[in-house]
Amino acid sequence: MSAYELSTAVAVAAAITDGHTTARQVVTAALDRIERLDGRVGAFTDVVAARALARADAQDAALSGGAKPGPLTGVPFAVKNLIDIAGLPTRAGSKINRERPPAERDGALLRRLEAAGAILVGALNMGEYAYDFTGENVHDGDAHNPHALDHMTGGSSGGSGAALAAGMVPLTLGSDTNGSIRVPAAFCGCFGLKPTYGRLTRAGSFPFVGSLDHLGPLARSVTDLALAYDVMQGPDPDDPVATLRPAEPVLPHLDAGIDGLRIAVAGGHFARGGDPDAFAAVARAAEVLGARGTVELPEAHRARAAAYLITAAEGATLHLDRLRTRPQDFDPAVRDRLIAGAMIPAPHVERAQRFRRWYRARVLELFETVDVILAPATPCRAPKGGQTHFVLDGVTLPVRANIGVFTQPISFIGLPVVAAPIRLDAGLPLGVQVIAAPWREDLVLRVARHLERTGVSTSPIAELA
Amino acid sequence: MSAYELSTAVAVAAAITDGHTTARQVVTAALDRIERLDGRVGAFTDVVAARALARADAQDAALSGGAKPGPLTGVPFAVKNLIDIAGLPTRAGSKINRERPPAERDGALLRRLEAAGAILVGALNMGEYAYDFTGENVHDGDAHNPHALDHMTGGSSGGSGAALAAGMVPLTLGSDTNGSIRVPAAFCGCFGLKPTYGRLTRAGSFPFVGSLDHLGPLARSVTDLALAYDVMQGPDPDDPVATLRPAEPVLPHLDAGIDGLRIAVAGGHFARGGDPDAFAAVARAAEVLGARGTVELPEAHRARAAAYLITAAEGATLHLDRLRTRPQDFDPAVRDRLIAGAMIPAPHVERAQRFRRWYRARVLELFETVDVILAPATPCRAPKGGQTHFVLDGVTLPVRANIGVFTQPISFIGLPVVAAPIRLDAGLPLGVQVIAAPWREDLVLRVARHLERTGVSTSPIAELA
Repeated sequence: MSAYELSTAVAVAAAITDGHTTARQVVTAALDRIERLDGRVGAFTDVVAARALARADAQDAALSGGAKPGPLTGVPFAVKNLIDIAGLPTRAGSKINRERPPAERDGALLRRLEAAGAILVGALNMGEYAYDFTGENVHDGDAHNPHALDHMTGGSSGGSGAALAAGMVPLTLGSDTNGSIRVPAAFCGCFGLKPTYGRLTRAGSFPFVGSLDHLGPLARSVTDLALAYDVMQGPDPDDPVATLRPAEPVLPHLDAGIDGLRIAVAGGHFARGGDPDAFAAVARAAEVLGARGTVELPEAHRARAAAYLITAAEGATLHLDRLRTRPQDFDPAVRDRLIAGAMIPAPHVERAQRFRRWYRARVLELFETVDVILAPATPCRAPKGGQTHFVLDGVTLPVRANIGVFTQPISFIGLPVVAAPIRLDAGLPLGVQVIAAPWREDLVLRVARHLERTGVSTSPIAELA
Repeated sequence: MSAYELSTAVAVAAAITDGHTTARQVVTAALDRIERLDGRVGAFTDVVAARALARADAQDAALSGGAKPGPLTGVPFAVKNLIDIAGLPTRAGSKINRERPPAERDGALLRRLEAAGAILVGALNMGEYAYDFTGENVHDGDAHNPHALDHMTGGSSGGSGAALAAGMVPLTLGSDTNGSIRVPAAFCGCFGLKPTYGRLTRAGSFPFVGSLDHLGPLARSVTDLALAYDVMQGPDPDDPVATLRPAEPVLPHLDAGIDGLRIAVAGGHFARGGDPDAFAAVARAAEVLGARGTVELPEAHRARAAAYLITAAEGATLHLDRLRTRPQDFDPAVRDRLIAGAMIPAPHVERAQRFRRWYRARVLELFETVDVILAPATPCRAPKGGQTHFVLDGVTLPVRANIGVFTQPISFIGLPVVAAPIRLDAGLPLGVQVIAAPWREDLVLRVARHLERTGVSTSPIAELA
């Protein structure tokens, strides 16, 4: 099994379906690679080898018996450890949660992927309770960026980005409240989809901020991303915010190209306060896409502030009892942010919610004249592990609080985004956010696919001897 | 024009329609009575005599010309001064708001009443920004209880209760966030309807707590109450929470009686912490109604606490800019409550909202086995004006914070209620809350009508020489 064959879900499923390899061979190769590399990468917190091999054998037997293969047949994947895996406590990056009883059932998206033939191999490292942009975790150890192990993966879905960049699996699931899929996708150089708020069910996952949480896939190709997204779509009565929207498959239209799409670059807030490289990455994508002009998301800096307020207050509401009874068992940085959130006056949060409705209405108006908006995913490349401050546009700023400066104003109103990786040089990758109006995942995936097809976005596996 | 003829809306409309009197005579009599008595009562903050007389003349002319009279033809009424009256600034009991530009248009309910023939004669006194249970106002002077002028009217719709008890008009509008219709109805001895949350449009009124505010009528007879309610019902696109529910007229069924209705008395929280007289009033109503057994609204004391939190925080959100720039222009008591509200931590409010959903679900379950629940409206008769403390059940408590102890847990979840007056003796009146499931105004009005028909509930005009 070569690294190439493990590199995309589509290639794996085709190789198994065509009889060139077996699910057991693929899963074994994935488990071997995890075992060989993960001591340095720190992408996984749990590996479910027995479960994965049993499932692989069952699939191989079924295929031998003439069963119709699913679109993700034999594709090894892994999920951020806030998604339930039957038999494991859902730790959500925390120490406290691992005392919970084991989950009785897999999370809904995990079940949908497995129903399409994919095979779960493990749970992925993440920042504690998803309140993190770095991929660092004091309980499980930090995730390390496979492209430069002394650098951050970004977070909070750090393991989800690292496992892809290290070539351990071709598909992972993450969650994104303020940027937690898009940031590790950018830092680790892979593709990540944060769907429209309410599009993918969150049933069977541990929440962070109910009004901002999204689950979504990460992959090393846009086709894999779209394929996984399509099999996960559709209403779920178990998630009150994902009950209505019917599935709208995008894979059939993925290669429709970008003719006729009105694509613009986000100006203002999204064009300052970052390294020049971050804007150079956007410029490169804009050039290939024939983007015209800029659009201003009004008061985007206030959207970021409002997202902070709502996140801290809602997060604190969720964790209030734990903060009261077990403060010593939190990551001190997470605990102190949550305690601060517990003391935010309610009128500030209410005003943030009112602003949110105003801002959403203004941004939706922009989509009357443009179809897709481009913006940087992060203000810089991955900082070093443990780095606490960086200099952006001449200003020294704390790292943790500022990595999400460009992602927060987008997730704040639930817009669909693909984070597409851009390599400007031999250094670490950067990412571009491809943003559309609600429910237009088809557009952001088509545009990302165009970036991939033209060679602007690539997601190579890191060289880890 | 005798006081009798002014005493009910139905009598006034019939007398005019039948040619026994004219709208001008009725309106003139009402204006005269207001002018003669209101210096002592303090029910009105504005009298719109010219407007009222012009409208009366127009009606008289139309009737002479053979026009079909409306059901409220010639009925003088007045509205709490948080409802817009074209040409007047909507003061909402405050000093600050009277600097606002005059309203361009009457509030929606006022327009609906006038469309049915009623004639606005003025705006009614209220507690500042409706954050009040006493009917006292530092800017406009206190409203005084017509049954004993040295006693409170209750609030915040103090003028709405006082104008009725003083026989100035047979119909008023008030608002009720935590009890502001039901408390003055009880203290002033008249009927008040707090409809289901979302039933009557609030368009063209100054808000207090958007998620708890209700507008509704007060009157001295249940038929008047039902008649006014019926003409005000129906969706209004201008109020986002009153857009859906179709009108469901109750007047045709008002005298259907109570046969078959399962009526119970609220126990627990609603059966302690008040004067024995308050519970005696409920017992008298229960006896006449053949009420059977008691029901427990679970955790009703927490519902009251949660209503406080949400009220203070949402109210503070509304007034935040005014609190910052013009604190000296508030009633100091209101200001300090709002400032306290501005500092309530958001997670407390969020938890109060979650509790609210739980409590609402539990209470709705009760309505599977009962149709109507009886509870006291207030824990005692009207305290003296300016009284700051009272003794309830042996405990000395602040008056302002405790008048609503029995009303708050009901409005908190938007249930329809009629406050029906009960006279135990020659002293001040008391009130009973007649409560039903959401959208069942028909039941509470039918039960209140039965109390009226059997003579248990009466609403005489106060003796004011």
